[in-house]
Amino acid sequence: GKRKVSLNNLQNNETNPMENSMYKDYPYFADIQVMIFLGFGCLLAFFRFYGFGGMVFNFLTATFAIQWAILIQGYFQFYSDGKIHFGVINLINAEFACAVVLISFGAVLGKTGPVQLLVMALLEIPIFAVTEWAVLKYLRINDAGGSILIHLFACYFGLGVTFVLYRPSLNKGHPKETTSYNSDILSVMGTLFLWVFWPSFNSALTFKGDDQHRAVLHTFLGLSSSTITAFALSAMFNKRGKLTMADIQNVTLAGGVTVGASVDMMISPVAAYALGIIGCTACFFGYKYLTPFLAQRLRIQDQCGIHNLHGLTGLISSTAGICAILMATEDTYGPSMYQIFSHRAPPEGDPKLLELQKLIPGLKPGLGRTAQEQALFQVAAVFATIAAAAAGGLLTGLVMKLPFMASPSDENCFDDELFFDVPSDFEGGEVLKTLENFDPTEKAETLNTQV
Amino acid sequence: GKRKVSLNNLQNNETNPMENSMYKDYPYFADIQVMIFLGFGCLLAFFRFYGFGGMVFNFLTATFAIQWAILIQGYFQFYSDGKIHFGVINLINAEFACAVVLISFGAVLGKTGPVQLLVMALLEIPIFAVTEWAVLKYLRINDAGGSILIHLFACYFGLGVTFVLYRPSLNKGHPKETTSYNSDILSVMGTLFLWVFWPSFNSALTFKGDDQHRAVLHTFLGLSSSTITAFALSAMFNKRGKLTMADIQNVTLAGGVTVGASVDMMISPVAAYALGIIGCTACFFGYKYLTPFLAQRLRIQDQCGIHNLHGLTGLISSTAGICAILMATEDTYGPSMYQIFSHRAPPEGDPKLLELQKLIPGLKPGLGRTAQEQALFQVAAVFATIAAAAAGGLLTGLVMKLPFMASPSDENCFDDELFFDVPSDFEGGEVLKTLENFDPTEKAETLNTQV
Amino acid sequence: GKRKVSLNNLQNNETNPMENSMYKDYPYFADIQVMIFLGFGCLLAFFRFYGFGGMVFNFLTATFAIQWAILIQGYFQFYSDGKIHFGVINLINAEFACAVVLISFGAVLGKTGPVQLLVMALLEIPIFAVTEWAVLKYLRINDAGGSILIHLFACYFGLGVTFVLYRPSLNKGHPKETTSYNSDILSVMGTLFLWVFWPSFNSALTFKGDDQHRAVLHTFLGLSSSTITAFALSAMFNKRGKLTMADIQNVTLAGGVTVGASVDMMISPVAAYALGIIGCTACFFGYKYLTPFLAQRLRIQDQCGIHNLHGLTGLISSTAGICAILMATEDTYGPSMYQIFSHRAPPEGDPKLLELQKLIPGLKPGLGRTAQEQALFQVAAVFATIAAAAAGGLLTGLVMKLPFMASPSDENCFDDELFFDVPSDFEGGEVLKTLENFDPTEKAETLNTQV
Repeated sequence: GKRKVSLNNLQNNETNPMENSMYKDYPYFADIQVMIFLGFGCLLAFFRFYGFGGMVFNFLTATFAIQWAILIQGYFQFYSDGKIHFGVINLINAEFACAVVLISFGAVLGKTGPVQLLVMALLEIPIFAVTEWAVLKYLRINDAGGSILIHLFACYFGLGVTFVLYRPSLNKGHPKETTSYNSDILSVMGTLFLWVFWPSFNSALTFKGDDQHRAVLHTFLGLSSSTITAFALSAMFNKRGKLTMADIQNVTLAGGVTVGASVDMMISPVAAYALGIIGCTACFFGYKYLTPFLAQRLRIQDQCGIHNLHGLTGLISSTAGICAILMATEDTYGPSMYQIFSHRAPPEGDPKLLELQKLIPGLKPGLGRTAQEQALFQVAAVFATIAAAAAGGLLTGLVMKLPFMASPSDENCFDDELFFDVPSDFEGGEVLKTLENFDPTEKAETLNTQV
Repeated sequence: GKRKVSLNNLQNNETNPMENSMYKDYPYFADIQVMIFLGFGCLLAFFRFYGFGGMVFNFLTATFAIQWAILIQGYFQFYSDGKIHFGVINLINAEFACAVVLISFGAVLGKTGPVQLLVMALLEIPIFAVTEWAVLKYLRINDAGGSILIHLFACYFGLGVTFVLYRPSLNKGHPKETTSYNSDILSVMGTLFLWVFWPSFNSALTFKGDDQHRAVLHTFLGLSSSTITAFALSAMFNKRGKLTMADIQNVTLAGGVTVGASVDMMISPVAAYALGIIGCTACFFGYKYLTPFLAQRLRIQDQCGIHNLHGLTGLISSTAGICAILMATEDTYGPSMYQIFSHRAPPEGDPKLLELQKLIPGLKPGLGRTAQEQALFQVAAVFATIAAAAAGGLLTGLVMKLPFMASPSDENCFDDELFFDVPSDFEGGEVLKTLENFDPTEKAETLNTQV
Repeated sequence: GKRKVSLNNLQNNETNPMENSMYKDYPYFADIQVMIFLGFGCLLAFFRFYGFGGMVFNFLTATFAIQWAILIQGYFQFYSDGKIHFGVINLINAEFACAVVLISFGAVLGKTGPVQLLVMALLEIPIFAVTEWAVLKYLRINDAGGSILIHLFACYFGLGVTFVLYRPSLNKGHPKETTSYNSDILSVMGTLFLWVFWPSFNSALTFKGDDQHRAVLHTFLGLSSSTITAFALSAMFNKRGKLTMADIQNVTLAGGVTVGASVDMMISPVAAYALGIIGCTACFFGYKYLTPFLAQRLRIQDQCGIHNLHGLTGLISSTAGICAILMATEDTYGPSMYQIFSHRAPPEGDPKLLELQKLIPGLKPGLGRTAQEQALFQVAAVFATIAAAAAGGLLTGLVMKLPFMASPSDENCFDDELFFDVPSDFEGGEVLKTLENFDPTEKAETLNTQV
């Protein structure tokens, strides 16, 4: 009889069990798991009275988003012979989709309830999956680290949502929009989890071998230069020369995004290092000038500043990727160029393909694109992704604003007490009593400065 | 001369050093290390005034239990030619034995001193090792995730111990039996470490290849459905619709146990998902109704509710494993059925064995059991394990109750000050002063609701 | 044209991409990353008012040190054909150099500003790299776990620095030189991260195969015995029989250092276990008696007690390594002896080399040293390393003492407020107000007792 159970035979004609695809994918999956659940979880727990919310809603949203993404991506990308093919590689793809949701979550952190977050994941995952599928199938781009599909999509989706959920009163600051000594340390731990495993994130879906090796090294270099730059800028632009924890928690990570689109290409270590510095600088000044501007002029309250850490850096990364594509020559890459830039490989039937296949057995036929053509498709992908994300975010925001979504009142924002049975030492209520003494101008400078 | 040093030649006739068994085992070992020391350590640090105790006694007990298990298991399972064969695989087995002790520890958390805990490990490890050895040697069961041998044994051993150590006064609650904002967050971090690496735990000892791949996927699915279910039940059955942190910390993990006994079988993703939901539901209502009942009627004070997270789920898992065994056919599994269900393989000399060995080279002769026979042996293993564990737990509890074991007085339970030099901001003493104002009925509802 | 980009072809004539060297190195790199950033970061955050400083300056110093080490080590060890060869193996080596800086950091924790720390890294990395290069090139020693080159160098460099930066007033204690309940727990978490991944640290640069397998097992055993011993000594030598958190945080790790120099040799599990006990005992009594003596008599204020955890243990480890070298015979090791002790292999042209190469294909010619000769070179390496480290440390201390280095005043030591914008719940200022009530004699016993 026909078998319907999809885990029965994950690989056919297998002789050595260690050649199971799992052994190539599982270490990266495990690292990304730590990033999603512990990295994001701790990073988002930076509010003094919203630590439960940051960490626990991250747990809930992530778990739901991954399950939902397995189904949706399975249908679009892994479906054949009447069933979804399922393996650790699907889990990695689903965790990438989950990362998209969690980044968008950063824009509305503390201002949304769990029902709203689940609805956001419910809508964002299919919109993301369709965009991803369409871009990969029709535009066919290079984006190993996901700068376009993950970071730009997540950012503009989140901005769309938060635009709709605009709360005028929060522009004056909120007494609970503050950190504590312990929550700041917890958030730095989250940053460190992300920092440490980011090379696995950026290299999880590259070609195995030299490509993956380069992706690890470029990511490490980009993060390193970005971290040093973040410390320097944080101290230099602080009135008293002190370090700001929000910079340590967020701006240090900018380099990981910025190298993303060209992470597996032969861009040289110096270029990766420079990308880290450029991305970090853009991200830092974004937090300083752009986020307040967006909030006050454009009604976009970007709670964690995802436009700085994922938007600006994503745009720089996309541009760098396009430059790397335009500069790529067979002289530099050798025949492996047609493996990395697979769409530039000669199409089926081209005699050059046969010639190349002698050098690289198993090289797949491509589309015979020139570098310029590939660059144009990358540009198209950037605009298409941003457009789809922004539209999807606006739509999702409208749904999340519906009355039965249990959105917290302005007063109850950034407060765990609304959603959790809190222990007796929780002091959220105490702070609310001092609300009358609250001076919004003092708080305004620390507003909107996280993730 | 004869060599007695057992690490000298870990593998013989080795040509490629990368074929050393270490490279197959070490990644799983590292993941399980994180679970044991950081996962359990943080999870058990959930008490407000017993954070040192939870994390540090976990460290002490785990380290001692692993060393002791290496020796005891080495004697029973890895002994030949006059010496114990020693490799990373022994460490994995010893960490499983250690997990058994740490789960049992959950039943008596906060009510036992370090000497008592070491005595518990001293006695539990050999009782466990003998039970494991006897069940594996004589009953020969399938239990890849350790639902029977690890979770059921640990649970009923712990219940046996806590039955003997019954403290009537604690049934009315204790002023220090409470959490703090920081300890709750720390405990969620422990949950996340366990959640993230549980697939490695459940798949560490399966066959390599498809079996291990399935174990990873089934565990991930079981945990995912269990997490979503735990959030839903926690909010639905809370008076004010709020989330209870103890549910997030514990009930989310139920799915990892529930898929254990059938984790490497072809049970289908849907079945793994369903098992997560069923196990989580049983676990949740166990915390709500069964734990208070056990404490007040049966004198079993299960401090962290291990009977819910490991006992009920272990029983469901064992039942599911038996169903999977009964439904396994060569039609579904192909000849690999005799690899997974190794005791169903034809015995030495059977002509069918030779035929199968042509399809699967290296297939070992089995016992020629039918599915029904195997199922009966699984049932026997469940009862034998529970009986051995409960008897061993009662006996161990009697030893732990001896007067020179430095058991803390009722008043000093859940308090780090008895065993640690505490820093000046420790407020345990302050709380004790308010003991007279303490209302037991208020506390009773949060009693017995952790791990 | 000539290619200058060093990441273009990481391996030549490669047929199977999975044979890329990255796949052998990356798992160990990822583990060491966690140790450096999360392990050290949390461990050094143990001060109540210096948690930001401990974790964030560790982040800054580590990132800078790794980048700088990549360049310096690249020039000395990985330079050929006019370029630095760059791969994950360089990152591992750079993280080892980084660990050296972080250990030295422990001697001056809380008493130095970020500029001073960067200057320390700036000078320590090249001094370390030249020492490492000279020892490896001219003395050619066995030191898989880095007991000599990493731990002894780091220790005596740090002691040199702190000798120059002597602050007489701190010998009487400091009101902020204290821990909090949360900072102690955080620091234990750091210890656990280091404990869990230490086997990866000690085995990252050994030969693959049996040697690496032994390194993992010996490290685990050394850590295990050391942990049990630390708990026992901590309780036994405490006036009230209580555990001291500083012992749990530091002394437990002594075994990892102590097995270092002989970790890949056939020293037997019993010897590894014994080394853990011996190293731990020395470390414990070092904290108790030697650190106060050094501070009060020799003007060496070793803030975290690195001389106990890295110096004394490093000396014991070096001695044990020399014993293991002297006792190594072909009878025990077989022909693989010339692989582990590569300098004992016969030199080029020796007929015994050809004979051995038949047994071990690819065995490299050595220097034909006897065991006694190798032992003498090990002794020379110990003294040369200590001398270079101490001299380098003194010199670096002098530079760090220059007036424009922004060294914190005695009063501002151990206080985050000097370098960070602290949240409103930070209480450092409160403590300073109680300075007059501060009794130095009470504090003196907890002084100088960490890392």
